[in-house]
Amino acid sequence: MTNPRFAFSIQATDGAARTGVIAMRRGEIRTPAFMPVGTAATVKALRPAEVRATGADIILGNTYHLMLRPGAERVARLGGLHRFMGWDRPILTDSGGYQVMSLSALTKMSEEGVAFSSHLDGSKHLLTPERSMEIQRLLGSDIVMAFDECTKNGASQDEAALSMERSMRWAARSRAAFDSGGAHAESAALFGIQQGSLDRDLRAVSAQKLIDIGFDGYAVGGLAVGEGQEAMFATLDFAPGQLPADRPRYLMGVGKPDDIVGAVERGIDMFDCVLPTRSGRNGQAFTWDGPLNIRNARFAEDESPLDPECGCPACTGWSRAYLHHLVRSKEILGAMLMTQHNIHFYQSLMQRLRDAIAAGTLTAFANGFRARYLGRGQ
Amino acid sequence: MTNPRFAFSIQATDGAARTGVIAMRRGEIRTPAFMPVGTAATVKALRPAEVRATGADIILGNTYHLMLRPGAERVARLGGLHRFMGWDRPILTDSGGYQVMSLSALTKMSEEGVAFSSHLDGSKHLLTPERSMEIQRLLGSDIVMAFDECTKNGASQDEAALSMERSMRWAARSRAAFDSGGAHAESAALFGIQQGSLDRDLRAVSAQKLIDIGFDGYAVGGLAVGEGQEAMFATLDFAPGQLPADRPRYLMGVGKPDDIVGAVERGIDMFDCVLPTRSGRNGQAFTWDGPLNIRNARFAEDESPLDPECGCPACTGWSRAYLHHLVRSKEILGAMLMTQHNIHFYQSLMQRLRDAIAAGTLTAFANGFRARYLGRGQ
Repeated sequence: MTNPRFAFSIQATDGAARTGVIAMRRGEIRTPAFMPVGTAATVKALRPAEVRATGADIILGNTYHLMLRPGAERVARLGGLHRFMGWDRPILTDSGGYQVMSLSALTKMSEEGVAFSSHLDGSKHLLTPERSMEIQRLLGSDIVMAFDECTKNGASQDEAALSMERSMRWAARSRAAFDSGGAHAESAALFGIQQGSLDRDLRAVSAQKLIDIGFDGYAVGGLAVGEGQEAMFATLDFAPGQLPADRPRYLMGVGKPDDIVGAVERGIDMFDCVLPTRSGRNGQAFTWDGPLNIRNARFAEDESPLDPECGCPACTGWSRAYLHHLVRSKEILGAMLMTQHNIHFYQSLMQRLRDAIAAGTLTAFANGFRARYLGRGQ
Repeated sequence: MTNPRFAFSIQATDGAARTGVIAMRRGEIRTPAFMPVGTAATVKALRPAEVRATGADIILGNTYHLMLRPGAERVARLGGLHRFMGWDRPILTDSGGYQVMSLSALTKMSEEGVAFSSHLDGSKHLLTPERSMEIQRLLGSDIVMAFDECTKNGASQDEAALSMERSMRWAARSRAAFDSGGAHAESAALFGIQQGSLDRDLRAVSAQKLIDIGFDGYAVGGLAVGEGQEAMFATLDFAPGQLPADRPRYLMGVGKPDDIVGAVERGIDMFDCVLPTRSGRNGQAFTWDGPLNIRNARFAEDESPLDPECGCPACTGWSRAYLHHLVRSKEILGAMLMTQHNIHFYQSLMQRLRDAIAAGTLTAFANGFRARYLGRGQ
């Protein structure tokens, strides 16, 4: 098949884990996949070619940020998000639902959607399933996310049920709005988002409603919102299995490297998280021996690379001592190199996970990873 | 001659202007040369390979900043500034004299040198000609600048004379201290700095004292300190000619593109300035049609490159609209691309100046440049 709209082929499984390829017209996405976050039409501190060189097949863009600045209609007039930012491979856009609640002021939620004031200039906006689909179409997104409400951590059973039911009604409206999008609907994919908090029955109801609507892929939403890794893994022990086995499963907003390894073991295929970019700018580096903070005084004259096992440009070109100096001096190059390393580390982790699943050695790899990564944090 | 310590060959002259090559063991420097400023062991927002790709043959490092953080002894323990920051071509370091007076607190100047408190942590330091030479040796500088006092703009004739005389005594101490530097003295070059404010006679006295001491190159100091372009050019009408014709002449801290063109016409061979890097981070781009501020609303949907005549990665890869968005959004990538373009523009200007001198067409080039650059500022 040449230039398919969306084709997911599973090449190997190992327990609940799978490795495969999503083929789309802008390129292939190897799974399990990590998507660097390009909030405001840039993966912060990296050029697109540098993002690609880490091994990233797809990046994420944020509907909420882009609708406010530079604006979805403006991006459309400029030829779409890919052309605007110079990234020609797949882009997944979120629906804006999560960030409108966490970032904007004066939000008012109704069955229609969410009215809010911009955190940038106070301007008034209304985000609905229909408007979210329109924005993601204007951006030219390859993988569009249904508009939902991320049920808050600690919600009661009743609250979680009501929230999930509304998200499922919004999922149906998202599907209808997406399908009316003309040429875009014929070239892009639409993912539904499972809610239901930590409850197995609510998650099952949510999954069935999404399956009845029908999506190209399915996200596990409402996790990584403060419940902790143990509760997240407990939910991932059943939630992915409630979703279609032949469709990609995407765990939104996750996470730390050990979160990702545990989620892959439980059947998740796609991830996104600001952690490698944001923490890179703050001086935290990920290594196979655990995270380290390069600001620590003991790195001031350390001539070794950030991670001796890493082949990224930051690790082959400069010492911990230099990165320590740059980050302490608040130099932009520090953010550039730390981010480059961290994204490279995440992509290397995904490649090792894919290789381990293909070889049928995921459990051994995951246990070895944890023993080293969690056991010897620097 | 292979790996010379310092050899300046003039290949062509055009009026007072010259084009040539300075050969040093770490590489050749084509003149007239512009040196991007790498204050804290990084040309801000660019990797060394990106700096080199603009056409830069040499960069500048700041003694004042580096002595305070990470510290000269620390840089020496880490193998010197070149290894530390990953730049293997020539580096010129200033003496610290100018910045200690402009940036530090509680300075106290005496014949011995300048006592001051760090602007970073308040720690006490003493900078003398001998300590400045030691720091520049510890950094592994290729072109060392004598320690001097930059006579302030508006100084009376008496003040300028006293200041210049002290700088000349410090120049002799710098020469002696540099020469006692062992292997470094045999591989690096030392430049003297002419002072004398805007006065022809004081400049002549200063030049003769420097010539009597003997240096590899000579800087014109004490300009670009607020006197204005007209007064600077009036001084450059005589000051370079007071210095040896067979040695490079370096105008410190200059400047705007039209400053550089006018100074090259008056016989200057080397320049440094923070303008392309600093103003790039603030959204100002240099183009052949004059400077533009990319934050201006009229660029919000401008799909043309920053400068249609420029072949730099920023201009070939992205639109003004995208750069407008990045800079307005305070994205690091905006600083990266704007800086990359500006340094590229400066290096392109130097190449056009070198070509014009070699072709004997400098006056026509300079007039054409000014008519366009100054006449159609955007």
